[in-house]
Amino acid sequence: MTVYELARSRKSNRCFSTEPVPIDDVLYAIMVALEAPSGANRQPWRFILVRDPRVKESLRREAERWEKKLHESKSIPEWFAEWLRERGITWRKEFLTRAPILIVVLADKRAPYSRESVWLAIGYLLLALEERKLSSLTYTPTNPKAIARILGVPDQYTLEAIIPVGKPDCIKEKEPRISLEDAVYIDKWGVRLA
Amino acid sequence: MTVYELARSRKSNRCFSTEPVPIDDVLYAIMVALEAPSGANRQPWRFILVRDPRVKESLRREAERWEKKLHESKSIPEWFAEWLRERGITWRKEFLTRAPILIVVLADKRAPYSRESVWLAIGYLLLALEERKLSSLTYTPTNPKAIARILGVPDQYTLEAIIPVGKPDCIKEKEPRISLEDAVYIDKWGVRLA
Repeated sequence: MTVYELARSRKSNRCFSTEPVPIDDVLYAIMVALEAPSGANRQPWRFILVRDPRVKESLRREAERWEKKLHESKSIPEWFAEWLRERGITWRKEFLTRAPILIVVLADKRAPYSRESVWLAIGYLLLALEERKLSSLTYTPTNPKAIARILGVPDQYTLEAIIPVGKPDCIKEKEPRISLEDAVYIDKWGVRLA
Repeated sequence: MTVYELARSRKSNRCFSTEPVPIDDVLYAIMVALEAPSGANRQPWRFILVRDPRVKESLRREAERWEKKLHESKSIPEWFAEWLRERGITWRKEFLTRAPILIVVLADKRAPYSRESVWLAIGYLLLALEERKLSSLTYTPTNPKAIARILGVPDQYTLEAIIPVGKPDCIKEKEPRISLEDAVYIDKWGVRLA
């Protein structure tokens, strides 16, 4: 498959079957991520693969505690609250216990352009998971520090995302995308593609 | 090619031949990037393709003015200064005028997880450029605001990277990468792969 075909077919998924997935497929995707470029080649990424149901349970409990507070606080802008409602997205994060593997992605704060590098590598990772026909979601918890603490992550690392990986157990359309014409300018802001 | 093969063969490149590259290959890579996921699907990315030599010249002049200040200021940590020296990387950014196309990547600050989403999309973009056999570099200027101003970019967008694209005119080894064993833990920080 071409990179375009992989990118096109990949969509964020929140509903996972509990069917186990081969850890080798997940390790393959991480090997791909490790090839990404990074500021001064510091390779600030580290990955914790969570498979233990008790660990998944504690991550979910901690994540939901804060998500619930956030969702009840009315501090979510109205457009975003509506976007979430339309998709049935609540404070409940069932995927954190349903998905057979969670990839917790960490960034070493001490490296230059640490966050940027790690998210670039997440781009590599998602395409590789798709190539292995694994569904994924880039979940960014409200309380990354508290979750990192549960996993024993040292202070110099930030928790950037938790990526549940598995097979979907629902069918969902991919969200629409803007067109090339709306995304690209030539030589200056506002000058459209001919 | 598999995603791993693309990721493995892709390396950052600073030396470009002035040979023109098909704009369709660059547009292909942007089409790939447009398929990336983003916070609330806000698709905060915009791309300015710079081909006009005069525009490239002004970007370079502005970038180098600040790079020169930075390199002379001694505010670069010693380990980083040495890393740059070993690779012959100075304040001069010749690639900004040599490379036939620069992709200026912008992020809409108003979108949630704007920076994260845009860098994830850059990961998609780099693999697609590699697939089309185009060399690239993710250059992060010291003075993104001043450069964005030259391009007429509105204030609500940040300039995240300038990606020169073209054919290399030197041969460079890929920087080494850490091993899977050093990058991955199981269920908790510090627990190695069996």
